[in-house]
Amino acid sequence: MPLQRSWVTSANTTEGDFPLNNLPCGVFSVGPEEPRCGVAIGDFVLDVTALEADGLLSLAGGPFLDVPFWNDLMEAGPAVWVDLRAQLTALLNEHSQTRERVEPHLYALSEVGLHLPFLVSEYTDFYAGRNHAFNVGSMFRDPANALPPNWLHIPIGYNGRASSVIVSGTDVRRPWGQLKGANDPPPIFAPSRRFDFELELGAVVGQPSEGMVSVADADAMIFGYVLLNDWSARDIQAWEYQPLGPFQSKATATTLGPWIVMRAALQPFRVSTPPREVPLLPHLQEPGPLLYDIALEVGLTPELGVETILSRTNYAQMYYSAAQQLCHHTTCGCPMNVGDLLGSGTISGPTKDSRGSLLELSWGGKEPLTITGGSRTFIEDGDTVTLRGHAQGDGYRIGFGACSGRVIAAHANPVGSGR
Amino acid sequence: MPLQRSWVTSANTTEGDFPLNNLPCGVFSVGPEEPRCGVAIGDFVLDVTALEADGLLSLAGGPFLDVPFWNDLMEAGPAVWVDLRAQLTALLNEHSQTRERVEPHLYALSEVGLHLPFLVSEYTDFYAGRNHAFNVGSMFRDPANALPPNWLHIPIGYNGRASSVIVSGTDVRRPWGQLKGANDPPPIFAPSRRFDFELELGAVVGQPSEGMVSVADADAMIFGYVLLNDWSARDIQAWEYQPLGPFQSKATATTLGPWIVMRAALQPFRVSTPPREVPLLPHLQEPGPLLYDIALEVGLTPELGVETILSRTNYAQMYYSAAQQLCHHTTCGCPMNVGDLLGSGTISGPTKDSRGSLLELSWGGKEPLTITGGSRTFIEDGDTVTLRGHAQGDGYRIGFGACSGRVIAAHANPVGSGR
Repeated sequence: MPLQRSWVTSANTTEGDFPLNNLPCGVFSVGPEEPRCGVAIGDFVLDVTALEADGLLSLAGGPFLDVPFWNDLMEAGPAVWVDLRAQLTALLNEHSQTRERVEPHLYALSEVGLHLPFLVSEYTDFYAGRNHAFNVGSMFRDPANALPPNWLHIPIGYNGRASSVIVSGTDVRRPWGQLKGANDPPPIFAPSRRFDFELELGAVVGQPSEGMVSVADADAMIFGYVLLNDWSARDIQAWEYQPLGPFQSKATATTLGPWIVMRAALQPFRVSTPPREVPLLPHLQEPGPLLYDIALEVGLTPELGVETILSRTNYAQMYYSAAQQLCHHTTCGCPMNVGDLLGSGTISGPTKDSRGSLLELSWGGKEPLTITGGSRTFIEDGDTVTLRGHAQGDGYRIGFGACSGRVIAAHANPVGSGR
Repeated sequence: MPLQRSWVTSANTTEGDFPLNNLPCGVFSVGPEEPRCGVAIGDFVLDVTALEADGLLSLAGGPFLDVPFWNDLMEAGPAVWVDLRAQLTALLNEHSQTRERVEPHLYALSEVGLHLPFLVSEYTDFYAGRNHAFNVGSMFRDPANALPPNWLHIPIGYNGRASSVIVSGTDVRRPWGQLKGANDPPPIFAPSRRFDFELELGAVVGQPSEGMVSVADADAMIFGYVLLNDWSARDIQAWEYQPLGPFQSKATATTLGPWIVMRAALQPFRVSTPPREVPLLPHLQEPGPLLYDIALEVGLTPELGVETILSRTNYAQMYYSAAQQLCHHTTCGCPMNVGDLLGSGTISGPTKDSRGSLLELSWGGKEPLTITGGSRTFIEDGDTVTLRGHAQGDGYRIGFGACSGRVIAAHANPVGSGR
């Protein structure tokens, strides 16, 4: 599909994140006004809450956008998702007759505040990156038995904490926790010394389920995708995670990008998951290509420094798609709800410069990474971590916007200190 | 504290669950009418939604009970919780002058439907039973190293799935899942063959937090306690849980009792946690007795049979209190919300007849348990599991009501089958 041209001329560039083909969903505010739903187009956000109130946008069964989150629109179902895109495309394309009425509802992205685009119902984090699982297994076990025995059979995951999901731009306070090395005396309670990011893509569940759903039906339930940084305290994790899995190490914060890129916008970029190393059980097999070719990168910017790109990788590296993860999530009958968030797992490529976490990039802290003006093993106070991603179309990009967060110093005494 | 006598004479018995001293919070419905908030008293439920609407109950900042869940009342805070109990005690005590106006709002418990008493925000399950952890560790590892290294230092837990929390009386469909024994060929996808219950007590978080809270402050955030059966598919669990912890094995259903017993009603029954085997880090130490002496039992009733009591135990067996668990939950800065639910972990006593799961009672299925008219290793289709609990006062009981659920047969083909 070629670039669809818009009368918003900044949308018609080869390098921008938000051409008319994209139309990602966010929540924005202007000054002290109440947040509302918006769609990014070029250098602007279009106030779709106002558009719907004015009748320029008319969705059957609506209004759905009179709340500062996209959950109601998601709940309305796939037919409404399609209709929304069709109506917005008609309003914004270069031949639109309604430009004069729509234009007053555009706000410069540089002048708005961005909020979480949806209410996160529950958050599940998976572990579906083949290279990440191999790297971590090699470090903590041995390369010959790096993958857990279940790994090639199940998209393994764990339940995360929805309450700690925050939007890009929110500072992240370095956590305290129990820390203990394998050969240390009893544990201590101290700020994490091995605080890390994880480059992931989040799938946003847009429809509920009861009982088990097939991979194909699971794919149809996914409203869109969002950049996701699953902050991880490696030292807290190492001491706490046996046998019940990660808990406090992952619950300080999970940062989401401000824009949900709808599944429809990613349709032209579908790719298959890599060849299976062992056959999957039938219920987890994919009926067609359900992964996406999405280029991703992570940058780190010290407090007073310039950004170094730490890693470049691609979502196509994942061994399991979000549809397979969602299917697995329902096998036991677990009900899924609108607004559930599924983290892909860390997206690491096969080479050193494509690893999606500092744990892997610095090989457990043993190989410091050179950055402009310094080096890093794990994140230092004042560092800002920024994720970016896009699918490359023919003369345009479907971009996700930046997902960034700055790590600030731990509290001197954490008890009763707020965030 | 002695029995407080009520004009509801069925509340003045030595064996009933619901004397005036208790006043547990539930949600009930009469026939097809909308559910509303109620408080159990003797053999009745008192319609407190109607009481508040009529002005017989007047809470500062209210109404809080005009919704079919207790979250709004919880959010109103501890001063309102105290006032609610004081006003209800005044209305219901034997010398009350308002009996004539209150009595029309009583409904026989035998004639109402009971619903989830609160909206579960997120659900965390802990593993704080010393005997349970020892038994499971002995079975899966060895008795000399039964406890995980972190166990005596942290109340370890994992995030569960709030969407699968259901109220007592709801059938539980046997789940499908990936199953694989240690020496089996590749895994199969089949209904669970080792479906189990776990006897737990749930703590209901009634106030939000930002940042870390002390053990004392955590205790003050807890609104009350509820019986909790954490259904567990042991065969799914064994194959999936390394290294990320339990996931699908625990997400079929978690059954809650219909009544939240407020913390204030349990105050006379506080006991200390057992002596520490290793010193706790200061932030996890308790300022006083924060556990409770609550007698618990589990009964199993086959489809066409009579009930056998499988186990009798006590909440005082726990190594960590809910306040310690909640404190630990916030150490990393994880925000807690009104309606968060914390499972205690399986409550097993030191003897065989006080174990809180079939896994332990049948020692991994190796020692079938005799029940009236048969035997069990794990749950069979048609079995109803019922939890009961009470604190024993001087001539009265603070009871939790029954928490029961029947297991029904797995779907023949699970895909798209609903619940």
